Amino acid sequence: MHHRLAIIGFGTVGRGLAEILHKKKEDLKQRCGVEFSVVAVSDLLLGSVYWEKGLKLSQLLNLANEGQSIAAYPDGIKGWDSFRVIKESRADTIVEVTYTDLKTGEPAISHFKAAFESGKHLVTTNKGPVALCYRDLAAMAEERGVQFRFEGTVMSGTPVLNLAARTLAGTTIKDIRGILNGTTNYILTEMEKGLSYSAALKQAQEMGYAEANPEADVEGWDALAKVIILANVLLGGDLKVQDVPRKGITGLTPEDIHRAAQAEMRWKLIGKVQRENGSVVASVAPETIPNSDPLAGIGGATNALTFTSDFLGPVTIVGPGAGRLETGYALLNDLLHISVGDGIGSKDFW
Amino acid sequence: MHHRLAIIGFGTVGRGLAEILHKKKEDLKQRCGVEFSVVAVSDLLLGSVYWEKGLKLSQLLNLANEGQSIAAYPDGIKGWDSFRVIKESRADTIVEVTYTDLKTGEPAISHFKAAFESGKHLVTTNKGPVALCYRDLAAMAEERGVQFRFEGTVMSGTPVLNLAARTLAGTTIKDIRGILNGTTNYILTEMEKGLSYSAALKQAQEMGYAEANPEADVEGWDALAKVIILANVLLGGDLKVQDVPRKGITGLTPEDIHRAAQAEMRWKLIGKVQRENGSVVASVAPETIPNSDPLAGIGGATNALTFTSDFLGPVTIVGPGAGRLETGYALLNDLLHISVGDGIGSKDFW
Repeated sequence: MHHRLAIIGFGTVGRGLAEILHKKKEDLKQRCGVEFSVVAVSDLLLGSVYWEKGLKLSQLLNLANEGQSIAAYPDGIKGWDSFRVIKESRADTIVEVTYTDLKTGEPAISHFKAAFESGKHLVTTNKGPVALCYRDLAAMAEERGVQFRFEGTVMSGTPVLNLAARTLAGTTIKDIRGILNGTTNYILTEMEKGLSYSAALKQAQEMGYAEANPEADVEGWDALAKVIILANVLLGGDLKVQDVPRKGITGLTPEDIHRAAQAEMRWKLIGKVQRENGSVVASVAPETIPNSDPLAGIGGATNALTFTSDFLGPVTIVGPGAGRLETGYALLNDLLHISVGDGIGSKDFW
Repeated sequence: MHHRLAIIGFGTVGRGLAEILHKKKEDLKQRCGVEFSVVAVSDLLLGSVYWEKGLKLSQLLNLANEGQSIAAYPDGIKGWDSFRVIKESRADTIVEVTYTDLKTGEPAISHFKAAFESGKHLVTTNKGPVALCYRDLAAMAEERGVQFRFEGTVMSGTPVLNLAARTLAGTTIKDIRGILNGTTNYILTEMEKGLSYSAALKQAQEMGYAEANPEADVEGWDALAKVIILANVLLGGDLKVQDVPRKGITGLTPEDIHRAAQAEMRWKLIGKVQRENGSVVASVAPETIPNSDPLAGIGGATNALTFTSDFLGPVTIVGPGAGRLETGYALLNDLLHISVGDGIGSKDFW
């Protein structure tokens, strides 16, 4: 089948997806029976292009990677804004990968709604809208009969929503806890090697793990958004940002780290969701956990999440929580679920 | 929908499934829309009973747990052998959970074939047939238009086949390596605490982790079967038992363990599968791995498996690799996939 995409936002993640679609074109056709074409790309900085016959991804990536306007693409209609692309392009699915705003969720929320109103599926890795108003958006998608998928919002390419919903189907999940922010985990790992907080932060910034303004990571906002998504999507909660106690890692000193190490413990920024007296509660805070805990061994920018359910002991998934191709892959996985239906993977393996 | 089961083999795992079906009856009806009924049970030691209207599981479990013949069940037809139950009972799906024989695969292979020939789906946690002749069995099931599912053969209730086939769909898996045998991992963990091999084995036997004859575990046969399943099912290999180099842990001494610890390493029995020059190769052997490896932190009877693919860095899943309810749950998950189709989980979460 043919699956036509419009990509809104052509930064790291959008380009990661384009690169994967370009490199795996033949493989996806042969193994999954799907031919993807990108009919439009719209970016606030790089301009926009719509070409119904499908854009040449290598050409588009060259323009973007050289910092040129994608309106320099030889064919197609130029100058449409994101909303016009969403509404008027002949795309089946909108890939929304603009920036995350945890206060307003915009412009992504408006993009999502425009997609649903136009009868188009939506896939995203944008945490803002899903954390702020998952229920409304899911209801709207359902009403319009379109799909709304966001596997990459929690652990990037490492599957957690599909894992819990499908692979663990039939269990009742009791609690979820884990390391949901790679930047803070990297900083804590470096502090264990003897660095001060500020030296470890500086190193994380040099490595590209932390932003110039690191607040979203180090104050726990990023982990908070992910915890709300897990609570509301997997445990049926209806939590808002203000419902979740949040504490970052900025108060931790080398002495704290050292004292924990002496007690065979480690500090980790832990996001938690659990059922408590019939309701769903969540939190984000640094905790000392014993070295024997599977989460204690997770070093560097890696993420990990432990699910506890009624029949299984703890099941933990560990993997990358960020990265250009990793996050691009999360989008591809969502797109394949839309293309092939839930029988995805069945042809190859069962 | 109504899903009728016949259970062949009523030992630990068969009873684990029956207990789950009994306890979760209402939940499965409400959340998944499936009503399971067990119409027949056949066991070499406990006898057999077939009751088309559905057996009362609590009553059946009481008989079995008290060591009584299940032919003492008040209703139904008694005395059918396993093949007659498979062929003549009005079950939709056969749950085959007899003992594992890695040399002949029998009687399970014949049970599987009888199920397919009778147009019945088959779910199992029995490694033997899947390790010995997956391709033939899968082809036979496909030809008859029935499903053949065996999630529990590798890591019990911890999902690995579904994870790789569905949740990681679209990636190309390059290699798989992990800790696939809980008994040996328990022994190695105890040896790290200072026990000799034989003292650790004795303790594992007392804990119920190791059999009186521990050869299948400690000589690597169990891990070997799992590695062959991963290779043939997930990487398209066609490996036989004799194609896979195998070494157990019986040669490891406290000195080996100590020397590794001094070098910040640990001994683990590692099962590996990878593509090499266009073909699929596999092995089972004890290895020293650095403490920083996610697999190094896996202590006790826990299992873990790391998948490396073309877009994702290593993704590791950690969880129980054995257990009555855990393995029973693997069967339930397979059964739900058959009942609800691949849209399993979609009602609750998406």
